[in-house]
Formats: sequence, structure tokens, C-alpha cells
Amino acid sequence: MLRFLTAGESHGPELVAIIEGVPAGFEIDLAQINGDLARRQKGYGRGGRMLIEHDEVRPVSGLRFGRSMGSPITFIVQNRDFANWEKRMSADPADRGEAKVVTRPRPGHADLAGVLKYNLEDIRDILERASARETTARVAVGALAKQILAPFGISALGYVVQIGATPAAVAEGTSIAELSRLTEQSQVRVADPRAEAAIIAEIDECKKSGDTLGGIVEVIVAGLPVGLGSHVQWDRKLDGRLAHALLSLQAAKGVEFGMGFMAGTIRGSQLHDEIGYDAGERRFTRHSNNSGGTEGGMTTGEALRVRVAFKPLSTLMRPLHSVDIRTKQGATGTIERSDVCAIPAAAVIAETVVAHEIASAFLEKFGGDSLAEITRNYHGYLEQVRSY
Amino acid sequence: MLRFLTAGESHGPELVAIIEGVPAGFEIDLAQINGDLARRQKGYGRGGRMLIEHDEVRPVSGLRFGRSMGSPITFIVQNRDFANWEKRMSADPADRGEAKVVTRPRPGHADLAGVLKYNLEDIRDILERASARETTARVAVGALAKQILAPFGISALGYVVQIGATPAAVAEGTSIAELSRLTEQSQVRVADPRAEAAIIAEIDECKKSGDTLGGIVEVIVAGLPVGLGSHVQWDRKLDGRLAHALLSLQAAKGVEFGMGFMAGTIRGSQLHDEIGYDAGERRFTRHSNNSGGTEGGMTTGEALRVRVAFKPLSTLMRPLHSVDIRTKQGATGTIERSDVCAIPAAAVIAETVVAHEIASAFLEKFGGDSLAEITRNYHGYLEQVRSY
Amino acid sequence: MLRFLTAGESHGPELVAIIEGVPAGFEIDLAQINGDLARRQKGYGRGGRMLIEHDEVRPVSGLRFGRSMGSPITFIVQNRDFANWEKRMSADPADRGEAKVVTRPRPGHADLAGVLKYNLEDIRDILERASARETTARVAVGALAKQILAPFGISALGYVVQIGATPAAVAEGTSIAELSRLTEQSQVRVADPRAEAAIIAEIDECKKSGDTLGGIVEVIVAGLPVGLGSHVQWDRKLDGRLAHALLSLQAAKGVEFGMGFMAGTIRGSQLHDEIGYDAGERRFTRHSNNSGGTEGGMTTGEALRVRVAFKPLSTLMRPLHSVDIRTKQGATGTIERSDVCAIPAAAVIAETVVAHEIASAFLEKFGGDSLAEITRNYHGYLEQVRSY
Amino acid sequence: MLRFLTAGESHGPELVAIIEGVPAGFEIDLAQINGDLARRQKGYGRGGRMLIEHDEVRPVSGLRFGRSMGSPITFIVQNRDFANWEKRMSADPADRGEAKVVTRPRPGHADLAGVLKYNLEDIRDILERASARETTARVAVGALAKQILAPFGISALGYVVQIGATPAAVAEGTSIAELSRLTEQSQVRVADPRAEAAIIAEIDECKKSGDTLGGIVEVIVAGLPVGLGSHVQWDRKLDGRLAHALLSLQAAKGVEFGMGFMAGTIRGSQLHDEIGYDAGERRFTRHSNNSGGTEGGMTTGEALRVRVAFKPLSTLMRPLHSVDIRTKQGATGTIERSDVCAIPAAAVIAETVVAHEIASAFLEKFGGDSLAEITRNYHGYLEQVRSY
Repeated sequence: MLRFLTAGESHGPELVAIIEGVPAGFEIDLAQINGDLARRQKGYGRGGRMLIEHDEVRPVSGLRFGRSMGSPITFIVQNRDFANWEKRMSADPADRGEAKVVTRPRPGHADLAGVLKYNLEDIRDILERASARETTARVAVGALAKQILAPFGISALGYVVQIGATPAAVAEGTSIAELSRLTEQSQVRVADPRAEAAIIAEIDECKKSGDTLGGIVEVIVAGLPVGLGSHVQWDRKLDGRLAHALLSLQAAKGVEFGMGFMAGTIRGSQLHDEIGYDAGERRFTRHSNNSGGTEGGMTTGEALRVRVAFKPLSTLMRPLHSVDIRTKQGATGTIERSDVCAIPAAAVIAETVVAHEIASAFLEKFGGDSLAEITRNYHGYLEQVRSY
Repeated sequence: MLRFLTAGESHGPELVAIIEGVPAGFEIDLAQINGDLARRQKGYGRGGRMLIEHDEVRPVSGLRFGRSMGSPITFIVQNRDFANWEKRMSADPADRGEAKVVTRPRPGHADLAGVLKYNLEDIRDILERASARETTARVAVGALAKQILAPFGISALGYVVQIGATPAAVAEGTSIAELSRLTEQSQVRVADPRAEAAIIAEIDECKKSGDTLGGIVEVIVAGLPVGLGSHVQWDRKLDGRLAHALLSLQAAKGVEFGMGFMAGTIRGSQLHDEIGYDAGERRFTRHSNNSGGTEGGMTTGEALRVRVAFKPLSTLMRPLHSVDIRTKQGATGTIERSDVCAIPAAAVIAETVVAHEIASAFLEKFGGDSLAEITRNYHGYLEQVRSY
Repeated sequence: MLRFLTAGESHGPELVAIIEGVPAGFEIDLAQINGDLARRQKGYGRGGRMLIEHDEVRPVSGLRFGRSMGSPITFIVQNRDFANWEKRMSADPADRGEAKVVTRPRPGHADLAGVLKYNLEDIRDILERASARETTARVAVGALAKQILAPFGISALGYVVQIGATPAAVAEGTSIAELSRLTEQSQVRVADPRAEAAIIAEIDECKKSGDTLGGIVEVIVAGLPVGLGSHVQWDRKLDGRLAHALLSLQAAKGVEFGMGFMAGTIRGSQLHDEIGYDAGERRFTRHSNNSGGTEGGMTTGEALRVRVAFKPLSTLMRPLHSVDIRTKQGATGTIERSDVCAIPAAAVIAETVVAHEIASAFLEKFGGDSLAEITRNYHGYLEQVRSY
Repeated sequence: MLRFLTAGESHGPELVAIIEGVPAGFEIDLAQINGDLARRQKGYGRGGRMLIEHDEVRPVSGLRFGRSMGSPITFIVQNRDFANWEKRMSADPADRGEAKVVTRPRPGHADLAGVLKYNLEDIRDILERASARETTARVAVGALAKQILAPFGISALGYVVQIGATPAAVAEGTSIAELSRLTEQSQVRVADPRAEAAIIAEIDECKKSGDTLGGIVEVIVAGLPVGLGSHVQWDRKLDGRLAHALLSLQAAKGVEFGMGFMAGTIRGSQLHDEIGYDAGERRFTRHSNNSGGTEGGMTTGEALRVRVAFKPLSTLMRPLHSVDIRTKQGATGTIERSDVCAIPAAAVIAETVVAHEIASAFLEKFGGDSLAEITRNYHGYLEQVRSY
């Protein structure tokens, strides 16, 4: 059972993640994890903070000589910006006078609900944790999961399919490798150069008008075996678990699998993926993959395909109407340094979050405490399925 | 902490749900729970099974003289159809010869992934549990949750906003009471008589052609306090938990909150719900509710609004192409008695599932072991928020 | 992951257990489960209720033709005594007048803490659930676990090592089979005929004086592989999990592993089990088993040995001093039908509870969804350990 | 819901704990937490490591200006000894040559089971995490819990009642304050000067002979309300949860509540705590506290009293017989720097672990997200109990 907790405030000294349940014997490449953190920081439309931070994990537990030992892995990411916030974010009661209390909640953000729930007077006490800066820790967690899945030939890729009003197409038949190459070199993580230009123009326009943009990302997972997740109890269905993880991302407002909402509008005969059999490979095949790779809460063995919608960022440079929580007088929302559009980052975040949930379901199904044991169990199952 | 397990096969003797964590002193009206079960069984387009079953809970624990005692509540629903299945679904090894093994998996269903994962030879061993019949137990669980919420003025309503190609509008300004009245009297649980006629025609046509229909349902929860859920850790965000529960429903393929996927396509200035203050009622107000009632993983105090997309049923009377799992020869999917369209039921199911998650978050926030204690804690908080 | 919930009041209609996470393909013999239930009902010193109840499970889910399907298994045990309690334990508000309210809490029982916590006025609302009658459901759960473990050669045995002032010895070198035979035929589940006579005399004396007796039981688990449980995180240590389960038993006041409390009083050189190696069997050996089969929160591969102390029953026929919760006047505790001594039953209960926790750790380590898969994974691991 | 994960190897760079679920508005005094860490490091019989480490928490999340914000709190404790281990404990694969592989497992330690389970070749990969150094993180977690409980007048105290063959008495009628004073100034955390001298002599003797000593500690919690924990479901019983936490401590072999194992040997009439009523204070009273403060898995409102037995340390300077895991030849167990006796530390560790579980049950019962809200809920409940 893989589980994790993240901790850390946006302008606190460090972000921390403890990941529990990683088996022993996996080679973990920190450069790749840092590579995913770097991918998270890229994208046209990001603000000034991305210039300050160059996120890197510092592993302080669970790894020795580049390998997992079975013990919990801790990743720490330093917030370089903390140097500018040391007094305002101090843990020391003596610094209380330095607070610069924030009192104008931003519509769309956790600010208002947060201070009411937790009975706090400084919105900063909420926004620091609610900030999407937390996703840095989640990307580290999910980047590790990608390396847990890699020895079994399972890989995840996140990319952008819409930003603001502009959808970005993926040409039919594009391989995952090609999709990865295209989106990785795109400034907005799309596979569609025409859309890219339109999106950049829209971002520029929003920047001028002090506005923000959301979008839709898609994650594909390839190389999956049949049978991750389960139909037997509500909370074990893989779609539900993925949805939980994805809708816990800051600004996420919707999630869909395969044809998703469109599936509600067409007929069964048009939707369901008919079944064939390939005697050479000894495996059941599908003529289509409208399900997005899950049926009955389990992987079908086809590629998993899930999309997540993110609303525009809540911090507008031309702020929205709000109310000062102290005076109850009308005001505009606080301006906290922010981006115009973070959807290219969101694609990376979603990719890693999906990888974590898949790794979790994978380890549950195959048990085992070491790479050798899991590999043996896994191949035993693959052969069992082939000779079914 | 509210938690539950459901159990039971579609044609087994009984469906069972144990609900743990219900505080003491709540009046539980079984007639209302049975009323919700009856609502689940209604709807134009349901098949023959609905004529056989008239679901009623039999409470076998946790209730005494109509009140909860704090102990786990068990609801049992008898499957009347079991009389016809006693031998085929027998627990007794002596009856193994009666099995009538099912070998042709239905595309869209758990059938194929299930038998491969669990290494079973009779698809019935999977389909019996994967069947949406399980939602009977979940409706019982959620109907109970509605009664936990009722003393605090919180209510949930599920209804249909699209079936197949036909969207069903809700007239602007329709009150929840009116919406409830309209959808309750509709044969397809919509508030739009013109859509109703079109939907019924489409169902009739599908029935003739042996096809099935999906759709989209919406759930509204009214009367919520601000601050259920939390932003502090990924798995405590209310949206994520709701999404988990909803995407664990059979045939669910997507979920969205408030403007949902649309939120990804418009600008921040158009989306976020500006904040005001009503000095008379001593509360913060919103000029709109595009968020669907959550910000930062917490309730805002506005109505919660969530939509779920369900794919068409996987059992087609004109079955899709499949493969016999024994012979590996092409075949058509098994025909198991089924409906043409179950979306009106899905709205009731989603309503109760949402109620359960809300009740769970509610009890977590307010603690307490008795109605008296929770009521005191709750009103203390409401006053705290008003005098914030 | 194996998990379960139990439900049901002592004089309610039924006791219920749902067990989730049982893999598919296991042969489950209900007669054996009923056999364990019968073992729980035996023992010199039991009261009248045992004459009324002849507990048998009715499986209502998860089993088909004697085999598990991977879906949750529900066991229902009818309370025959309910016939005498139908009105007093009715779920129907109309029967409220029949309550015969209990107002005198028994020292030692959940009665007083329960009514204060849950704000209830009738102690029956607490005692019905707090009653050790609940262990019937737990024995059913654990008896199932024994059958999950059996195909892997793992077996558990519980017996009595002390009742009241009388310890019962086990002759050195007694095999587990012999121990099972001896204790099974003993009226008080001991392997020591002289102690048996003394215990029976003490029970008789207690019965006369209206008093009750506790005792100490031991559970041995044989056939364990090395490496169940884990040292890596506090809540995964096997001893802790076993202790949680055992100290959740009614009347349990202490638990110890191997030498237990004695281990705190001797020196390291006298205690720790030295390590050898048997080249023929290719396995590490121990010269002793003072640890009771766990080191670092993991099984060592030696027999697990755990002891549990149970206090005397709280219902005395010559009741203790108490206070009427309504009048606050002095009174004696309520007399509810009860036994003089239930320690022979406690040994069976502890045995099955231990079996459940072991099965849970076993399934976690070996993963898999079917007997075939788990068997393959298990034997792969055993060979890995041998060729380490 | 309070939860936490710890991470970190004994000679790794840092120990880390993330504590999730701490409400907002609590004043947290780091000096007190460091005080508890210092208490953990004291005690006659500790080895050289205690001279190197002067443990102090560095808070990196969740606290601002000395107060909790509701977000997860992270404590980091630097391992000063890491400076001496940097190459041998490096996360960098390039340092693999520096390993100095450990191949001789110590009887009593996780060494052997660990390498077999996790399929590792260097025992250090196990012992680093299995080491009781991990309890530093747990003490930090529990020291925080003590500060969560303090505003409600609840306090915990751990002390030693036996080391090796020597029991240490507590004079009847000793107040908790006095007990704290006495044990705090004792070199071995006992309240019995005569025993202290004997214990020190025994430690000295063990040191000479290369042996180790275990012992028994007791924890008292005062100021508890009635009704923490619950009788309704097995895993919610407070005793079980405490037992889980305590038996997850390194070297713990037994736990008992109140009279504990003795309770199994006497009669009900001698054991159970009779009930009275104090009309002035409007509360139920007890004539004794043999139960140790729990009945039915709930606090009774009397002081909680729990004892834990710890076996002697597994690292002996005159090592026990073992086998080299590579060669399978007989050898003596590895010598890793260690103590002769750590029981005085164990008392502090048990104290803080108990405090954490109590705080967890406390927050569950009273709900709430801020000190103000919890205080209001708590006092409401206390008054409800008084006017019951």
C-alpha cells in the first residue's frame, strides 16, 4: 500500500513529502525526478516565481546508493523564495509583528472558506497551504511513482488539450512517443502548432488585461496490465481513486475517462469497445478504446485516458470584487504573485498524480517487497492471463 | 467518521450494508429510506426486474424504537428474484452442476477484466457483483445520510439534465422545492416537459433497436455551512472525496463541479464568484455560484452543484461483438436482463451518494456522539462564523 | 487488504459481518466455520444463553458453490433469543413503550461511559452492542481467515493457560497437534488435567458466591513464513496490529508476545534467540523462540506466540455497588443474564482474531486476487528465501 | 483525525515527521518539544551516541508565529552523527563502493527477517530504519500532542516501574505532580531511590559483561473526560488503539491496562471499580481504578494507566551466536554502537505515544478546526455530562 503526506507552505522554508510503502530494490534516478519538477515549472504564461525557484528534491530518507530500501522516502524541496519571507513566515512567536496581515479574500481561492473554518485572522495562514505550490511535492511523489512503474513497461504522459477558448488537436494515430516529443517541445504542452500560436496570443492578451486562463489536460498511461483496481467495493474502483486524486488538485473542476461526458450523449452500440482475440499474442483485443481503459473499475489492458478541467487561476492582476474580512467593507481581492496560465504545468502534475495512483493499485495487486519479488509476481500474472 | 461496506450479489439472497459511525439519538424514518429506494426503481426505460423487486430495507442493527444508538446500522434488502436463482446462485458446493456458465463478456461491463483478474471461469462470478443492483445498498446508505443531515437543514436533490442526445433545461430561478416537485413527477426525472417527450421517444426507439442510453445527472445540496472539507491535505478536499464516491458508481465516466469543464474554457474574470457581505444576516455573500459551492476543497456555504456523466448500459438486447472466453471464438455478448436507460435512477443514486459524503464531512467537522451534542457544536460554529 | 465490519446487538435479530478483500477461488467450508462458532459456545462456566443459541452462519454474499468470488462475504448469525426480545429490541418507534429501561450501570462494563458519551437514557442502548455477543461475528470472520491460511499450511490454535488463580501448564515438547487434541477435549480448554479439576472447582465456587472469573489465553500460529508485517512504519508492525485486534476484545486487559512481560526482567543474553543455519533445508534456524515469533514487527518464521489477559466478567449475580443514572441514588448493578467464566471461549475468539490479522498481513505481502495467483506468488517467495 | 508518518534512517541526514490534522490556533512551544526530546536522551546506561546527538526539532511547516494554522506540521531532527556516515549512507549510486556491508544479523533485531523479506544484501539497509532512533520522531509527534491536550487540562506522564530484575515502587498516594518531580530527577526515571541504586548497579554490571537490560514502564494520563474511544466497532476501542501504538515501539513485548495480567487471576468482585455519585461536583465517582481508566473501549474519566514491557536491547557488546548471511557460516552478531539500557528513554517515548493516541481520540470526539471551536465543543460536552 503506497501512501503519502505532503507538507509545507508556499513561502515556508521547505516543501516535504513522505512516501510510504515503496518496496526495496528499485533504482531511483533523482535527475529524472528533478526533470519532472522542471517540466512542472515550464510553460508560457508563468509568472515571476518560476524564475526564482529551480526545484530540486533533496532525498533525506529511504534511498541508499540510488536504491530504495523499503523504508519511507522523504523528498524535501527548498523554497528559495523563503529568503524573502523569513520574517513574515517565521515559526517564531517573537516575529508576530512582521505579519502584514492579508484581509481581502480572492474569489475562487480557499481564502474565505479557510479563514472562517479555521477561525484565523490572516488570510495568509490559509493561502500559503492552499497554494498550488503544494503540487511541487505531489509531482515529486508522482515522479517517483513513474520510476516504480518503469521496470514493468508502464508509462504516463500528460499534455494539454485546451487552454481557454482554444482546443488543441492530436492528430489521429500519433504514437505516444511522438506525442511526448511534440508536447515536450511545445511552449504550452500541446501537439498542435496552430493551437499553440492561438493560445500564446490569448495568454498575452490576458496578461495585458490582468486576467487568467484555465484549460483541459489529458493523461495517457500505456503498458497497463488488465485488472488493476476492482469492482467489488465502491472505494476500490480505479476510476474513483483517480478521480479523488485528480480533483484534489488545486483548481480542478472536472474529470472524465475515455469519452467522458460525451459518453452520456450517445448510444451503447456506438460507445462500447467490442472484444476480439489475438491468438498469436494470446490476448483479448478491443476494436476501440472509448472507455478510456477502465471497465467495472478495473483496467482493461488498453491505454488509460483521463482528462481534467482546471479553472483559471484565482489571483487576477485586475482583481475581482471582494470584502475586507476585518472591516466587512467592499474591496478588491488581494494580489499575490501569480501566473496568467498554469495549464502546461497542470498537465505534468496530473501525469504524475495519475502515475502515483496507478503505482498504488499496481503494488496492491502484485504484493511483494522487492523489485525481484514484484517482477516475479507480475510476470506470473501476465502468463496466467495469456494462458487463461 | 462515517464509513460503510456494501455486500451482495445481484441475484443472491440479500443485499447488505453496514454503516458505521452514525451518532446516537437521530430519528430514522424507514419509510423515507424505502421511499428513496422506490425512487431508484422508477423511471421510463427500466426493464422487467423492476417489476419483480420492490426494495425495502430490513434494519437488523443500530436502531431501536426508531432511533440510532451509535452502533453500526445494518440494512438488508431482500432480492425477491433470488427465488428464481436459488440453485444457480447457491453457496453450496453440491449445487455446482447448476451453474449455467456465462462465457461471453459484454463490452463495457466488468465481465472480461473481472474474470482475468480473479482467474474465474464463469463470468457470472463477476457480473453478479459488478451489477448496478449494488446501488440499492448505496441508496439505502445515502438515504440514511439524508436523515442525518435533515436536522441541520441540509438537503440533497438529484435530477436528470441530459439523456442521450437530449438536454433537459431547468428554468432560471427555479427553486429547489419546485425543482424537486417537477422532477419527482417526471417519468425521466427532468424539469423540462418538452425534453421529457423527446427523451421518451428516444428510449422507445432504443428499445426497438435493442440499444441503450446514458445521460448526465446533477445533484444540488442546499443548506450547507461554510467549511466542510479541507484544503490542507490532498485526500481531505471535499471535491475529491465526492468525485471518488461518484466515479465509483457503475457506468459513471465523468464528474464536474459548478461550471466544470466549461470552467476550463473561459477567463478568470468571467468565472470566479465575487464576494459581498450582508450585514443584516452577518454573512459573506456571492454574486454568482459558478464554483458549484466549493473553493479550496471546502464548501463555500453556497449550494453544492455537481454533475455526473453515465455511459449507456452495457447490456444490449442486440448484443455487441465479443469472444467466448472458453473457446476464444467470436460471439456476441451475453444478454442479461437489463434496462434501456437507467439515468432517472442514476440521479437518485448520485443524490444519495453525495448526501453520504456530505454527512461524513459534516460529522468530521462537528464531532460529537449524539444529536444533542452535534446540534450544540453546529450552532456554536454557525454563530462563530456570523460573529467572525 | 482484508477489512471487515461487524454489526448487531446482543438481543437484536441478527449479528452481521461483512469481510472485504477475500480473493477468489478459495474453498470455504461453512461447517468448519460453524465448528469454530460451536467451540466459542462451549466451556464449563457458561450460562443459560448458550443453551438457547446454536450459532450458525448464513452466508448471503461472496460465496458461490462453496468458493469465494473476490466479492465481499457476508455472514449472518441469527440470534434465537430475539424471539424473547422482539418488542424490547424493536426498531419500530411504536414499540417505545416496551423498553423496560435499564438504569443501573455495572462496574467494569461499558454501561456508564457509554450512556454519558452517547447521551442516552437507557443503558440497554449501550450494553446491547458492548456485549461480548459481538465476538460471535468476529469468530465467524476469523474462522474464515483460518480457511484463507490453510492452503498455505498456516494454522492457529488458542487455548487457556490460566483461569482465576489457577495456571494450566503445557508439558514441554507438546506438539501443536497434541495440544489441540488435549485442549479441545478439556472442559476449560487447558492441556493440564490437574489444573482442569481445580479450575472447575473454582468456577463452581464462584457460581455459588455470585462471582466471576477471568484468565489468560495463549494463541500459537504455526507454519508462518518469515517477513509478514514490517519494521518501516509504526502502524505496519505485526505485533502492534495483533495487539490492536486483541485488546479490542471485550474484557481484554493485556497482551504479550513470547516471553512478554518477563522479557522486561531478564538480560539480553538470556532472551534473544540465537541464529543458526540448516544447509539441508536451506533455512535460518533459531535455538529458542523467546521472541514469540516476531522481531522488528515481522514474523521470524518461527511459531507466533501471543497471550491475552481477560478480566472477570462484569455482570455479577451478586452485583457490585453502583448508582441509578436517573435518580443518582445508590443501587446495585443490573443483572443481565451472563456466565461465570468465559475464558475457554476467549481462547477461541483470540485464536480467530489472530488468524484474521495474520491473513490480512499475508494477503498484503503476497498480493494476488485468486488462490492460483497467491499460491504462485507465495511459493516464489519461499524459494527466494531458501536461495537467499 | 490526527495522523502522522515518520521517516528517516538512524544515520541518515535527518529524521522527519509529518503530523496531519492539527487544528488551528494552538500555541506550540518548541522549547517544550525539545525538552521532551532531551528527556528521551537521558538515562543512566545510554551509550556514546547520546553524547553526539542533541536532538532539536526544526519546524518546516504548519506553524507560524508559534501557532498552528491547521496545515500539516513537519518536524525535522538533524542527525549530527550523519557527518561521520555521509559516504556510507549516501543516496548517491556513485558511493556504492563505500558501503561496508553488514552481514551478521543480531538475534532480537529486525536484521534477519528484514533482509529476507526485502531481499537485501546489506543488513544496514534494514537496521537503519528498524533502529529505535526512529522514536526521536515519534517523541516529537507525541510532544506536540501533549501541547494539543494541555489547554484542556489533560497531561501524560511516563516513568519506569522495573528495570531488569529490580522493580521500582511508587509510594501509595503519590500525586502525579510529585511522581513527575521524583522521576524527572532520577537517573533511571523511577520514584524509588532504593531501587534506583540497585538498578544503577545492575546496569554497571551489565555494561561490564557486555549484556543489556529491559524493563517495564508505566504511563498515566490525568484530566481525561469520560467517553474517548468507543465500544461500537472493534477498531475504535481506545485500549486497542493504544496497544497498537505502544506495541509498535521498538523492543516492546507486552502492554497492559490497569491491573492488566493480574486482572486475569482475581475475581470480579475484587476487580471492578464500584460506582458512586458526587452530587456537589455533579459527577459519577469510582471507589478504585483497577480498570486503568477504560471500560468498554472508552475512557471512564478516571486516570488512564497503561504499562509496557520492553525486552533488553538486541545489540550486545558480547554478541550472541549468529550466521553470516553471505557465507551461511556461524558468526557472532554485528556490534553497532548501542546502549546497555534504554528503559528511562522508553518511558518518555511511551508517554508521548500515549499522548498522541489520546489527542487523536480527543479531536475525533470534539471535532472542530480551531482552538476556539474545540474549546467550546469540549466545555459544552462537560456541562452535558454534569447535567446528565
